[in-house]
Amino acid sequence: MTRNLPTSSARIEEDISALAAITEPDRPYTRRAFTPMFLKGRNWLAQRFQAAGLTTHIDAAGNLIGSRKGRKPGLGTIMLGSHTDTVPDGGRYDGIAGVSAALEVARALENQGIALDHNLEIVDFLAEEVSIFGVSCVGSRGISGTRPDEWLSRESAGLALADAIAEVGGNAAAQRTRSDIAAFLELHIEQGPVLESEELDVGVVTAIAGITRIEIVVEGRADHAGTTPMGSRKDALSAAAWIALAVERFATDLAAGEYHFAATVGEFRVEPNAANVVPSRVTMLIDVRAERRADMEHFLAELREGVAGIASQTGVTVPEPRVLSDNMPTPCDADVLTALDNACDANGARHCRMASGAGHDTAWMARITKAAMIFVPCVEGRSHAPEESASAEDIALGAAVLLDAVQRLDKD
Amino acid sequence: MTRNLPTSSARIEEDISALAAITEPDRPYTRRAFTPMFLKGRNWLAQRFQAAGLTTHIDAAGNLIGSRKGRKPGLGTIMLGSHTDTVPDGGRYDGIAGVSAALEVARALENQGIALDHNLEIVDFLAEEVSIFGVSCVGSRGISGTRPDEWLSRESAGLALADAIAEVGGNAAAQRTRSDIAAFLELHIEQGPVLESEELDVGVVTAIAGITRIEIVVEGRADHAGTTPMGSRKDALSAAAWIALAVERFATDLAAGEYHFAATVGEFRVEPNAANVVPSRVTMLIDVRAERRADMEHFLAELREGVAGIASQTGVTVPEPRVLSDNMPTPCDADVLTALDNACDANGARHCRMASGAGHDTAWMARITKAAMIFVPCVEGRSHAPEESASAEDIALGAAVLLDAVQRLDKD
Ligand SMILES: NC(=O)NCCC(=O)O
Ligand SMILES: NC(=O)NCCC(=O)O
Repeated sequence: MTRNLPTSSARIEEDISALAAITEPDRPYTRRAFTPMFLKGRNWLAQRFQAAGLTTHIDAAGNLIGSRKGRKPGLGTIMLGSHTDTVPDGGRYDGIAGVSAALEVARALENQGIALDHNLEIVDFLAEEVSIFGVSCVGSRGISGTRPDEWLSRESAGLALADAIAEVGGNAAAQRTRSDIAAFLELHIEQGPVLESEELDVGVVTAIAGITRIEIVVEGRADHAGTTPMGSRKDALSAAAWIALAVERFATDLAAGEYHFAATVGEFRVEPNAANVVPSRVTMLIDVRAERRADMEHFLAELREGVAGIASQTGVTVPEPRVLSDNMPTPCDADVLTALDNACDANGARHCRMASGAGHDTAWMARITKAAMIFVPCVEGRSHAPEESASAEDIALGAAVLLDAVQRLDKD
Repeated sequence: MTRNLPTSSARIEEDISALAAITEPDRPYTRRAFTPMFLKGRNWLAQRFQAAGLTTHIDAAGNLIGSRKGRKPGLGTIMLGSHTDTVPDGGRYDGIAGVSAALEVARALENQGIALDHNLEIVDFLAEEVSIFGVSCVGSRGISGTRPDEWLSRESAGLALADAIAEVGGNAAAQRTRSDIAAFLELHIEQGPVLESEELDVGVVTAIAGITRIEIVVEGRADHAGTTPMGSRKDALSAAAWIALAVERFATDLAAGEYHFAATVGEFRVEPNAANVVPSRVTMLIDVRAERRADMEHFLAELREGVAGIASQTGVTVPEPRVLSDNMPTPCDADVLTALDNACDANGARHCRMASGAGHDTAWMARITKAAMIFVPCVEGRSHAPEESASAEDIALGAAVLLDAVQRLDKD
């Protein structure tokens, strides 16, 4: 379907190709926050912001910001953006599509000579991905007052995070929480298969799932694999296999409901991991995503009970599952969602409402402003991999939806 | 029960304590073949052999041999022994108990002034454990003509195995297969819990199980753990969990029969093993032990069928399980077993017949002579660990059984 859009897929394609070329050689696409390659990408991007008529600066949190003054600056700022840092061996679209779409909104406003009442800021958040400091969403947490102070002294290769923020042009000591943002909007690739398989153009994100990480340690007993009768074993791997299957079953049951739910055993380490030794210990890390807190609590209760049952049936010892981190689900703002739905309809975008199973900067921005986000389709849901793929046309349509929604919110 | 034995638990205790003191510092008990610590242990042992009236030499295969001439050397040699090398962080008894018991037989013969018709050789086999060259039973395979020629060019830290054998005093090029051995006997700790739990003194080993190692690779698909719906995943870990549980179930069923059977998933590696990524690949190594070849074949057929079913139900791809190594079960010699049963009865040793689930030098010696072995109890079946424990009294009783059996075989 060829649409007559105010946004340009050609300019978006140019943004994305240019950033894709700024990658660690031999490891496309790698542009991790705080590395020289990241700064190279940022320099290119700042010029691109300026070419769109934006005034650029790095804020105290280390975010790159392109600003355009509004007619009534007292109304505050509408902020749009995402991030350009990548995971190691990442893709060309995760975050980047959102920065390019936000920039395209600014370019379209400029081209069409449209003045907004609100100030407009296009943002490239610092270090959304887990960076070399082992933490994520550094920039959006910085301006939303949710960046733990103890993070600043974390070190990577002898450098403290506070100093690394200074190196990109920020100033952690001068940080203040932004209170002038009237609304925040982000476009992101879905990183899942739903839009593509349902042939939709846009997902209007109702909530960003809570992310809980749980560690389970299964303690069995190392025994000789040749001589220990099957009935006399305490095989930590067998018990851990039952637990992994229980996690999958509980999650599948909860996911059958109306709300997004997923649980994954992503990390699984076996000791001693030797051919002829019955495994003595397995350490598993479970990643749980819930749109509704009640589902998370239900899952945790089922997990505790399930694990205790498996331990007593298999003879292994499993200490109480340990919650390593636990973030609440974040609902998106109802007014912004309505603006986005209407903007989709106005631009002929086939859309649905859906929750985000992935974490995003939007979740932190929601602490300080009316925030919401949209997803655009990506091929086979692949993400965090060089095969990540999305179409510039879909991103341009998403940018047109953002542009439309911004104009609606500007009038509110 | 205090017995009046011709063998001395005190001397055995001395042997074991002295060798235990010869260990890599801070890693008791580590005396890996070909290391300086191993040679130090060997030097001590050679003197101990000589003190027992034995003439020592290192044979072409790198085995330490203590000899005592018989009255009718034309009858050939009765050989007794085991190994003194250890795994990293191993125990004080695995192998060592057998060398000490064999030496104690020679000491008891010497003390009692008993001359045998056959020559007697006490052997400390080279590198029974998986050594720094990645292979095991180097010495017993050397003299039994079963050491693959290609092993000799294997390297560890730049040294070829052939040169490492030369460094311990052997000469791989001059190797000949021994044809003069009339019988071989080995004592070993059980490395399993059966004798201890059934309050028996000696296990007369009917057969050494075949050892088959099977690699299974489960190929799923890496996906974002937050966004990929539970029903759209190809989770390699879930499929691998089903396979591990199937291995355990098939093995438990087979082990319920009359013959020894065990199967263990000892190694299990998950990729990419990242918290928020659905596992894309699991590589598992299955260790299978069967007293009867038919059980092994039955297991392999069940495994192939089970794996194919799990693959089709979970949507992952699992190539045909790959057999990495496959050794046949080795029956022990019926005449030697009868001599050992009778020797147990004569010494008041409570005994049973049982299969060995573990591999032993005896399995290779059985290729060239009438061979058999006995087990003595060890605490909780623990082995290949510093906690490995056995009593010098039990070993002395086992040595008395060997001494008695040797005298019976000498007369045959
Ligand atoms: N969007 C995204 O990939 N965030 C990374 C954190 C997560 O959701 O696992
Ligand atoms: N006896 C013993 O531990 N042998 C090592 C090889 C094995 O059976 O796994």
